[in-house]
Amino acid sequence: MTAPGVPGPAHGARAGSGTSWVVAVDCSTTAAKAVVVDTAGQVVAAASQPLTTQNPQPGFHEQDADAWFEATVAAVHAAVEDLAPAERSRVGALAITHQRESFVLLDGEGKPLRPAVLWVDSRAHEQIATLGARPLSGGRSVHDVSGKPPDTTPAVYKIAWLAEHEPQVVHAAAHVADVQAYLALRLTGHLATSHASADTLGLFDLARLDWSPELVEAVGLRPEQLPGLVAGGEVIGELLPDVASDLGLPGPVPLVAGIGDGQSAGLALGVEEPGVAYLNLGTSMVCGVSSDVYITSPAFRTLAGVRPGTYVLETVLNAAAYVASWTARFAGSDVTTMEAEAAQVPPGAEGLLALPYWNAAQTPHWDALARGAVVGWHGRHTPAHLYRAVLEGVALELRLQLEALEKATGSPVREIRAVGGGARSALWAQIVADVTGRTVRVCSDGEVSAAGAAIQAHEHLAGSGDAPGRPGDAPAGARDAWPFVATGHDVVPEPAATARYGAVFEAYRGLYPALKETFARLATAG
Amino acid sequence: MTAPGVPGPAHGARAGSGTSWVVAVDCSTTAAKAVVVDTAGQVVAAASQPLTTQNPQPGFHEQDADAWFEATVAAVHAAVEDLAPAERSRVGALAITHQRESFVLLDGEGKPLRPAVLWVDSRAHEQIATLGARPLSGGRSVHDVSGKPPDTTPAVYKIAWLAEHEPQVVHAAAHVADVQAYLALRLTGHLATSHASADTLGLFDLARLDWSPELVEAVGLRPEQLPGLVAGGEVIGELLPDVASDLGLPGPVPLVAGIGDGQSAGLALGVEEPGVAYLNLGTSMVCGVSSDVYITSPAFRTLAGVRPGTYVLETVLNAAAYVASWTARFAGSDVTTMEAEAAQVPPGAEGLLALPYWNAAQTPHWDALARGAVVGWHGRHTPAHLYRAVLEGVALELRLQLEALEKATGSPVREIRAVGGGARSALWAQIVADVTGRTVRVCSDGEVSAAGAAIQAHEHLAGSGDAPGRPGDAPAGARDAWPFVATGHDVVPEPAATARYGAVFEAYRGLYPALKETFARLATAG
Repeated sequence: MTAPGVPGPAHGARAGSGTSWVVAVDCSTTAAKAVVVDTAGQVVAAASQPLTTQNPQPGFHEQDADAWFEATVAAVHAAVEDLAPAERSRVGALAITHQRESFVLLDGEGKPLRPAVLWVDSRAHEQIATLGARPLSGGRSVHDVSGKPPDTTPAVYKIAWLAEHEPQVVHAAAHVADVQAYLALRLTGHLATSHASADTLGLFDLARLDWSPELVEAVGLRPEQLPGLVAGGEVIGELLPDVASDLGLPGPVPLVAGIGDGQSAGLALGVEEPGVAYLNLGTSMVCGVSSDVYITSPAFRTLAGVRPGTYVLETVLNAAAYVASWTARFAGSDVTTMEAEAAQVPPGAEGLLALPYWNAAQTPHWDALARGAVVGWHGRHTPAHLYRAVLEGVALELRLQLEALEKATGSPVREIRAVGGGARSALWAQIVADVTGRTVRVCSDGEVSAAGAAIQAHEHLAGSGDAPGRPGDAPAGARDAWPFVATGHDVVPEPAATARYGAVFEAYRGLYPALKETFARLATAG
Repeated sequence: MTAPGVPGPAHGARAGSGTSWVVAVDCSTTAAKAVVVDTAGQVVAAASQPLTTQNPQPGFHEQDADAWFEATVAAVHAAVEDLAPAERSRVGALAITHQRESFVLLDGEGKPLRPAVLWVDSRAHEQIATLGARPLSGGRSVHDVSGKPPDTTPAVYKIAWLAEHEPQVVHAAAHVADVQAYLALRLTGHLATSHASADTLGLFDLARLDWSPELVEAVGLRPEQLPGLVAGGEVIGELLPDVASDLGLPGPVPLVAGIGDGQSAGLALGVEEPGVAYLNLGTSMVCGVSSDVYITSPAFRTLAGVRPGTYVLETVLNAAAYVASWTARFAGSDVTTMEAEAAQVPPGAEGLLALPYWNAAQTPHWDALARGAVVGWHGRHTPAHLYRAVLEGVALELRLQLEALEKATGSPVREIRAVGGGARSALWAQIVADVTGRTVRVCSDGEVSAAGAAIQAHEHLAGSGDAPGRPGDAPAGARDAWPFVATGHDVVPEPAATARYGAVFEAYRGLYPALKETFARLATAG
């Protein structure tokens, strides 16, 4: 299925040793961030342009899609401006990664018909409950086809919401575009995206790597409204001359298809290596591993992987570092002070156990009524105990998630490559290592998603004879030249602490099942 | 069964209208408190003498029994010293209430062989587990015979501990005395106590109202070591002349048998009235109702009542106001500030539910491994929510306890007569009324246990024609003249809040059963 007016992938990268630098863009929820990366994988220039979100109603999160483009152009322009003219001409490719699941409806001229609806927008709870539960034509479920357990984030439910509340807009729309497809249209004139960008909308048949007729039909769309598809790392088209000029790039520069920001970070962190999981321990926690087969489970969401035919299985906890920051505020303190105090509390927090479901439960329980719980209170406990229990609770949840991933893939996870604010905490990184019994490599906290896009751009150039080779394939030492890519320091588990946490994990594993009914009753009582 | 050298009750109170004042003593854990009460029930003099506790090992709590006597004499002397000589001669009786379950071993001359062991002493956990679980000779259990579920407080387990660890002391002991028996020996020369003081040792057959041969045998004692018994309100003997002189009382003055401090407070608060429960909402929470039949259950401890053949059923939660104070400290605040803030939080604490088992669970669960739990956490919650949830959790526990008491007695509780620091909180009193759906009469916070002893002394004098009649039997208005007796202001439940708490209670009721196994696992993990 190919959208009208969209050509197949163009392989138009220039050959020649002088053009092996790349520009990578991460068009995230909060900013468009651009980096220029040289042959050795070093960032030689970077710039960022903020994005704002509108909340017209509680739970509604919207952005102007125009702003995605304008911020991207401004960020790339600002980064490129720092280069000498000779350096600018070395830029051989541009690749984009981006916030996932967000989408915009376009008219026939590519103009947005309404504000874009973001991944975090939670308006479609009714559609999640109905469409998420019923069989599609053909009998399979949204989860079966799209790989995504019913949840707030996939666009499919919000498109169903729009079809119900704004039917004229959905009917009038010539195109539905994810962030990359919209930027590609503005940058190259081609409305196309990668499998691993498209699939996050939840309209994609992950097994077939194409838009799903039954999903498209279920939300009242027509197949011709969807963007064209290419594999990640293939070329969507060349930058339009006036755009290249606005960016400050001499051109011609191909736009290499990036992938969604989660998988892109995974690529940069080495998720393609056997036994490696990537972990973003931020406000929320996301952990992913590779799979060579398409499988689905409530224990993870399944995404298109870095290469066609591979998949990424991702677990998610909505509130992770969020709960740690919340706890510090609750105690009238700050994260730095609390961390120093919590480091003095022994593993197990002297019997205090936290279930970190402050923002409900995601994988594997998917319980919107679940909430946080802290169990084991005794007079000896202080705010430092609570803080430590929260860090431990998130790590215990990760252990639960990793065990589910290992069971699904049949492959043990031996190493966790971690980024995010939580991973910068020495205490938390040690707790994650001890609780999971696995080495935690605390990686550079640069623009990791953009790093994945840079790798894809470089790989394209390498494939066309113009780049230093894929970092993972490079001779020993080459990886160290890629500061983005899974460098960092290793935190290894301490056997005594791991043994102790084993007993705590037995208590943790049973805690949500024990409290499930209480959560439901509290929701009723509320 | 009567101990050697102890006469039957003496009925030696003087007749005559000039002798209707009484002295009441509460020999508590922290102080001996004396009040002089006039004919109208007004306190005309009061004094108190502190007692100290020794903790020779963790969990060990001991006092010198001599100090009980010395503090009692000093307190009475100080109170009486405030009276004019003519007033002193109006004192017609002395009665004692006291800390329960504490005991002392005496030699043949009535001298303590070792420090007294207090009710709060927790050394005997092994004996609780073994003796508390096995059948006695005859097949009944400690609980069946004594009315007391296996627990820290009854003396029986600590006597068993002494028999094991200090057998020579137990063997050498001529007598085992509760606080009243020891004071009676020193004050009158007679080693005797009341049923409702004796029974708290856990060596007492509550159905027969006599020492239990099988319990006495089970801990290696001999029947002749136990004090003589009288009914509460009967006379043990007259004060020894030199003692009366030390007290500053012209004498002769009879010592009227008081009862344990819990039942004594219940008497003062009107527990003999149908539909009334007394509530001490202090560091711990104790709630009691009357029963005309002897029944036992894990849902309460059964005690000898005010009159022979009546019983008191008491529930207990070890940590009540303790948890509120703890929460204020945890939040870096104070109880007054927290209460003001918590009053702004709506009933139900916006979904936050606290199980207040900071010091394990007592009635009805008796689970030493249970701990506190707070469930329902969401980002909106503040320390004020936690504080309110704690107040609500204690009230929800009380509702659970009241339902068990009503089921056991078949009599509804329509009014709660409350004393203690927690009852002085306007917010907490309202929460207790709303959660339980019952009127809470917040009573005077004078010396309520001593008030019960004063009532018993007055009743004795009335029986001998020398007092104004039992307050409960007095004509309308007479009760108001008894500031101790169940006066106070009524806090009535608000129907909307009670309805809302009904749904919260459904969640609360299931919370401990849901978490029981987690508590056990955390104890193992610790």
